[in-house]
Amino acid sequence: MGTGQLATLISQGFAGPIYPIHPTEKTVIGLEAYARIEDVREAPDLVVMVLPTGIVGGLLADCGKAGVRAAVVTSGGFREVGGEGFALERELTAVAREHDIAMIGPNCIGVSNFNCGLNTTYFPYEQEAGGITVISQSGTYSCHIYGHTKRMGQRLSHTVSVGNSAIVDLAECLEYFADEPTTEAIALYIEGIADGRRFIEAAKRASANKPIVSLYVGGTGAGARAGMSHTGALAGDDTIYDGMLRQCGIQRATSIEELLDWCWALSTQPKPPGKRLCILTNAGGPGASMADTANRIGLEVPILSEGLQAKLREHLPHTGASINPVDITFLLDYKALYDTIPRLLMESGEVDGIVMYGVFGTLLFRTLQAALKGRIDYGIEALVPMYMGLIEGFSKLSAEYGKPILVSSFWGRDDDALAYLTDVGVPVYPSPERAVKAFAALYRAQSFGS
Amino acid sequence: MGTGQLATLISQGFAGPIYPIHPTEKTVIGLEAYARIEDVREAPDLVVMVLPTGIVGGLLADCGKAGVRAAVVTSGGFREVGGEGFALERELTAVAREHDIAMIGPNCIGVSNFNCGLNTTYFPYEQEAGGITVISQSGTYSCHIYGHTKRMGQRLSHTVSVGNSAIVDLAECLEYFADEPTTEAIALYIEGIADGRRFIEAAKRASANKPIVSLYVGGTGAGARAGMSHTGALAGDDTIYDGMLRQCGIQRATSIEELLDWCWALSTQPKPPGKRLCILTNAGGPGASMADTANRIGLEVPILSEGLQAKLREHLPHTGASINPVDITFLLDYKALYDTIPRLLMESGEVDGIVMYGVFGTLLFRTLQAALKGRIDYGIEALVPMYMGLIEGFSKLSAEYGKPILVSSFWGRDDDALAYLTDVGVPVYPSPERAVKAFAALYRAQSFGS
Repeated sequence: MGTGQLATLISQGFAGPIYPIHPTEKTVIGLEAYARIEDVREAPDLVVMVLPTGIVGGLLADCGKAGVRAAVVTSGGFREVGGEGFALERELTAVAREHDIAMIGPNCIGVSNFNCGLNTTYFPYEQEAGGITVISQSGTYSCHIYGHTKRMGQRLSHTVSVGNSAIVDLAECLEYFADEPTTEAIALYIEGIADGRRFIEAAKRASANKPIVSLYVGGTGAGARAGMSHTGALAGDDTIYDGMLRQCGIQRATSIEELLDWCWALSTQPKPPGKRLCILTNAGGPGASMADTANRIGLEVPILSEGLQAKLREHLPHTGASINPVDITFLLDYKALYDTIPRLLMESGEVDGIVMYGVFGTLLFRTLQAALKGRIDYGIEALVPMYMGLIEGFSKLSAEYGKPILVSSFWGRDDDALAYLTDVGVPVYPSPERAVKAFAALYRAQSFGS
Repeated sequence: MGTGQLATLISQGFAGPIYPIHPTEKTVIGLEAYARIEDVREAPDLVVMVLPTGIVGGLLADCGKAGVRAAVVTSGGFREVGGEGFALERELTAVAREHDIAMIGPNCIGVSNFNCGLNTTYFPYEQEAGGITVISQSGTYSCHIYGHTKRMGQRLSHTVSVGNSAIVDLAECLEYFADEPTTEAIALYIEGIADGRRFIEAAKRASANKPIVSLYVGGTGAGARAGMSHTGALAGDDTIYDGMLRQCGIQRATSIEELLDWCWALSTQPKPPGKRLCILTNAGGPGASMADTANRIGLEVPILSEGLQAKLREHLPHTGASINPVDITFLLDYKALYDTIPRLLMESGEVDGIVMYGVFGTLLFRTLQAALKGRIDYGIEALVPMYMGLIEGFSKLSAEYGKPILVSSFWGRDDDALAYLTDVGVPVYPSPERAVKAFAALYRAQSFGS
């Protein structure tokens, strides 16, 4: 575990000095190692401890004496195992308090700040830094998700695994990230909250500054039991948490995927002024699915005015639909799809944002051209500058009009246009329904005033 | 559109002869072209028509006279556009009836049978054939999904886009695929059913043979409106469809992603004898999420007996949990994780299947090793045969015990172990919650008796 964490930290390009502490080795992964914290020539800003449970407390005290004021304690075997674990955790907490150490953990993976290459987890983050900060009672959800975010193009700012929260807890993290300038949206994974009053105060303040989405898993018998053996969390009744979170201005997601889906939109797109959604599509099935989902979750898909429909029809084939969903069907007029029609919709005042299906870059044509080995030439390279120019313009429309645009596609970052969109902050969801649900999350954040 | 469909068909390696018909070109994509159907030296088994609306009927009649008995009519502009579209569709239908042509469409993308490289859609399917057959009132859902299935590793048998269903409709497809031997599960996308009685009869017969999952999008105002302008479908009240589908033994998914998720499990894994789920994990967060989700959707996560827990604890570290979720935490004993512990669970009779989080191949180690440029050597190549041997054994446990195993991971087919599992029919879901929901779909199919 420790080797993995150090390897990740090095691979991440962290610019500051790194001092491995090891009782016998002279070097660790090519870095000069030290036998004891006292041997290091300066007090490190942060210590990461991955040690057998029984010796953590004593060595944390040594760190305190050496001037260390922040620590991540990865080691488990404390409160979460019950029995003597409680006493061990009390001792550890006393040491941290005595030396005024801001301790994260024990029983946690660590912290990451992708703005400076700090990553004390054991998974490298292979993306640019972004606006989503994850605060989690699960270590896994603070780092295994890097596989997911990379595939999707969701960019993270920080991740914190609070573990058993002996000193630093969810509330303290919320207080900090409420004002942290690179954090645009906060994803909160909760198994149970010990100090409800303190959490509510911190959460209310934080949600006034930043949109917060939560995943609470302690509201069922099996979920509560799992949380107890995981981080020793005391879960509570689902409806009580539901009301408490709503009062704090915190949305509640139903899965880790949804938690990140929603934060993706919240960290990149403007919030819609209302809940009137326009569905723009070149495919009937996704159009119908998006319309149906929107209605089911309380969004409006208004019938567009006769005047606006007439203007739209000037750019649609006779098989198209202008009513909303606006379905351009199999139309290859890219200028209409990425510029003229979205602008007509945004300018109309009849809708508060757009969810779109039908962005394709050159992946399909490249695939077919390769498979047909020279029997067909789509002239792709000649088209790319014009096409990508339109996509670039399209990506700027949401900022220009102050209304969100979300995209869905069955392709992902293997397609050039879709990769570009996610790179510049237009979320591309892998199913039509997820894009609509993310729009609803934007709308709820607007209602919450965060 | 026609060029795309032909390019796809050629790229797919279809073994039979292909005859492009074109009024003026002598060759199309390197194939000899014919001016008229009468010029082709034999009556083709299938004609695909991509023509202006007005001339489809006349040319279909020519095909009928030339002995053609099956046609895909891609052209739109019929019933779905209203007005004179109704009359055009009636004429086309009369022609098909007169010549006894099994016509799919009009206003559809086509049909695919991946067992013989037949693919008349405009997207290539870049995978092995599998057990999921998609029958869809959306053309998009019969072919754009190939991007999704490729990324996931979900394998398809057939896809059919029925379009306006003038002759061949959902019911007729269900009749056919009920007995089609490569189809293990049927995914049904529905915007509206014209002949309810006929559908119910066909669906009841089909669901007795094959598990069927549906996505119905016509049950809301906006969904119904979208379906009407898409395929001219007449949608109906959501609760009526809900009851009708249940009576037919058809499950109802809430998104296209879920539709395919569930069919993935149904087409690859045995159905569980009951609803007692064991959650096996090496990560507390996903374990708690899976437990919570299971309880929410009506699955049981039983507390394991003291005897079984004692046996399990022999293979767990002191930080692990044996109660269920079984959490092995950060244990690198692969034999325990992939063989000993799953066998103890399967043999216990206490659970009806396993949903697992925590399969990792060598992706992480390869990534770190590459990033650290020789400063660390995990000895990956030496580990691979032992590790992949365990994964291979693990993949066979569900068949051996007749109980399902589903996996979830934040990595995908970029990891060798996860790619292997999906290749041999162990679904790997991209989020813990989706794996649990797929287990519930297996359980429901068992309850339906399909």
